[in-house]
Formats: sequence, structure tokens, C-alpha cells
Amino acid sequence: LILAYDGTNYKGWQLQPDAATVQREIERVLREVYGKDIRVHGASRTDAGVHARHQAAHYKAPFIIPAEKIPIAVNTYLAEDVVVLSASYEKEEFHSRFSAKRKRYEYIMFSARRRDPFRERYSWRVPYKLDVPLMRRELLSLLGEHDFRSFQASDKKERTSVRTMYDLGIKKKKDGSLVIHMEGNGFIYNMVRNVVGTLMDIGRGHLAPGTMERLLEVKNRAKGGNTAPSRGLFLTDVKY
Amino acid sequence: LILAYDGTNYKGWQLQPDAATVQREIERVLREVYGKDIRVHGASRTDAGVHARHQAAHYKAPFIIPAEKIPIAVNTYLAEDVVVLSASYEKEEFHSRFSAKRKRYEYIMFSARRRDPFRERYSWRVPYKLDVPLMRRELLSLLGEHDFRSFQASDKKERTSVRTMYDLGIKKKKDGSLVIHMEGNGFIYNMVRNVVGTLMDIGRGHLAPGTMERLLEVKNRAKGGNTAPSRGLFLTDVKY
Repeated sequence: LILAYDGTNYKGWQLQPDAATVQREIERVLREVYGKDIRVHGASRTDAGVHARHQAAHYKAPFIIPAEKIPIAVNTYLAEDVVVLSASYEKEEFHSRFSAKRKRYEYIMFSARRRDPFRERYSWRVPYKLDVPLMRRELLSLLGEHDFRSFQASDKKERTSVRTMYDLGIKKKKDGSLVIHMEGNGFIYNMVRNVVGTLMDIGRGHLAPGTMERLLEVKNRAKGGNTAPSRGLFLTDVKY
Repeated sequence: LILAYDGTNYKGWQLQPDAATVQREIERVLREVYGKDIRVHGASRTDAGVHARHQAAHYKAPFIIPAEKIPIAVNTYLAEDVVVLSASYEKEEFHSRFSAKRKRYEYIMFSARRRDPFRERYSWRVPYKLDVPLMRRELLSLLGEHDFRSFQASDKKERTSVRTMYDLGIKKKKDGSLVIHMEGNGFIYNMVRNVVGTLMDIGRGHLAPGTMERLLEVKNRAKGGNTAPSRGLFLTDVKY
């Protein structure tokens, strides 16, 4: 399945006891469609409040429904803030998470002193002027293979924090928003939000130019900047 | 005050017992700022779920706070989905509603078979193809002074349903959305949503070309189309 969702009302992708999660919502609906319990696996375990324009997920279908009929059937039952964009059958060995070669995230941010009720659901408003060319240079120093331990959530430890970034950049939209994109072979927990939070601190002058390179060297989360809020973060692609 | 708000979580502008309304929220905050009860009057009594990018409101200030400080003071206490954009002092006889010369509304609509979780909070998705040039011609037949009784909510009767429309049109945005705008000396209850609902029925071929002119003649709500949902409607200007 290729899915999109507004993450505002969910405690993230992954199943949790007594919490609305996207996985739970999809499993609830697949039970309606197939008449039995089905376990769904997502490509990315998006965090509470994080959105997806393109999330991938797979499940073992107990019987065959033509692929083009699946979005129609599933969307009929799904909550308004989740939608299946397309469906396809894959080989037995396919796994939405382990077969993924690249993931892409975008983070939307804008600089304004005053609230904007229509933009803040899907972006981070920052009440400071930002040095965007500097932020762009700093972000680019993360390109390639690095140990991203300095950008790992301090309470989570993964087997390895080495990841490769293939495409990084910052674009300015017509309405003044900054769209920061990161595409890599994988992301450790909270990595994008920690990179963006650090970038913002550099852009407003609270952290010195060169901070990104230094953080890659010291491998210590405590030296990094803030964690950017989840509402500005979008999973925008998963490539196989 | 010039205000903007996301109307999703409000039962409209006007005070109601036991309901969250924008007026109640502003009055709650003015009580914090001035230390006493203050009655606020809005230019437009926007309906439940209707948004505003530019609503005007006035109140009698019990003492003088410099005008440029008012947005800062008020926004500190206001809920996240309401914001004061600016404030100014007016003459004693000014009334936000009765002094208004023109109001402008915009309605956002898009044509797509599939849900879009990121657009539907602020627009009406219609699962039909629409004949936009025809809709535009039909809308333009409302230009000038007319009796709009056919577009009045059936349960509300105002003294007169004669209004003058100065500027009407439909623009297509880059993302495919249609922005329908109506600017006039006033609007009867539900008028914009009833015009848009009727336009949609014309655009999809359920009502014949010429329906708008005929509705102006028959002055009968029962002959019109559907009422468009409130989430696509924005109050965008009030002129004095």
C-alpha cells in the first residue's frame, strides 16, 4: 500500500496499547475488508504528529482482490485523515521496511513573528530571522556516509547510527516557507527533527557555523540543538 | 481588531450558551487584558466551521493601550487557532458591522475522486468533473443588485434579501483548486454556501445553464442546489 496521512491526531505509526495509531487504523479497516485479523508492516515508524505524503506498508493478503480495487475498498472504511493512494502485489520476500533502499523526508518551517492559524498545523513557525544560505551549507556537510549519533534521540539506541545521505537541500516556497529535504538509505530515531532543530539554531546565530561537521565528529547528542516539533515533518517517499 | 481564525473548532462567530465560539474566545481574552467584561461586535457572523483571513471586530476600550501593543497583548492569551493581525482606534460612531461597506468571501473547492488529507480541512472536495467556464458565466449573472431570496437559508428570514454584488469570479490555483470569490455590500445567511452549492450542481451538469438567472427570478430557495460545506468558506475582507 502507498498511503498518505495527516498525523496530527495519531500517536505515530506504530501500534500502542490504548492509543490511536495509523497502523491500528489500517488494521481495523483490513479486518473489515478481509473479514479477519491482518498484521500490517510500515516502511517508516513515523512518530506522533508526523505526517506522510507517501508511506509504504505491506501485509499478507488472505485472498486476492484486484490491486486497483483495494484503495477504493479500504478508503471507504478509513478515517478522513488517512488515505490509500495505490496498491500492488509484490513477491513473497518483499518487506516494506527491510526492502526499502531510500527514504525521503521534508520538513516545513517558516519565519514569522505572528501566528498563522492556517499554516501551523503543517509547519514550524520560528519567530527569528534565519540565515538560509548558511543553513544550506551546514546541511550539505551531512552528505554521504556518517555516524549520526549526535542526532539520535537520547533515550533510543540503535544497533548502528551510521547512515548515508544522498540528497539534501533547502528550497524556499512562494509563501516564504522553507522546505528542507533529506533523502538517505535510512534514518535513526528523531534524526530529521534533530538535524532541523540544530539547523534552526545555526540559522538564528545561536550555534556557530561549522557546528554540523563538529557534531559528526563528537558523536554526542548533548552538543546538538533543539528537536524540531513533529507537525512540520512529512515522510514524502520510500524507494525500493 | 482585524482577526484571522481557523473556524474548524468553533460553532461560528456569535456567542452561544455552552459552545466555543470565536466571539466568546475574544471576550475571554479581553477580560484578561483589561480586567473587566467587554462586549465584542464582529463585522460578520461567520457560521460554524467557517474560517476568516480578515474579520473585523470592535469593542469599547475601558482605557487606552497603544494600538500597536494590542495584538501582542491579546495574542499572548488567545487560542492557537485565532490571531489578531492589527488594531486601531476608531471614532465613537464606528460599528464593525453597520459601518462596513463591502465584504468579501472566498470559497475553495477542488475536483478529485480521491481524498486528500492535507487539503480537506480548508476546502470542499467534489468527486465530479466540473465545467468551470460555465460555472464562471453563471456566477457572473449575479453581478449587481438582486433579490437573493433563492439563496437564503430556508429557516432564516431577514428584513430584506436584496444585496449588491460588486466583484465575482473563479480562479484556478496551481494545485488545481478553484477559488470562487464574491464581494458585495452584504450577504444574507448562508448565501455564499448556497450560491457555491448551486454552482457545483450546474458545473457537474445536474442543473441547467441559466439556473442562476432563473433562481433570481423565482425567489424560492427550494429550487436551488445544495449548500456547500462550511470548511471551504473564508471571510477574506471587510471594507469601510
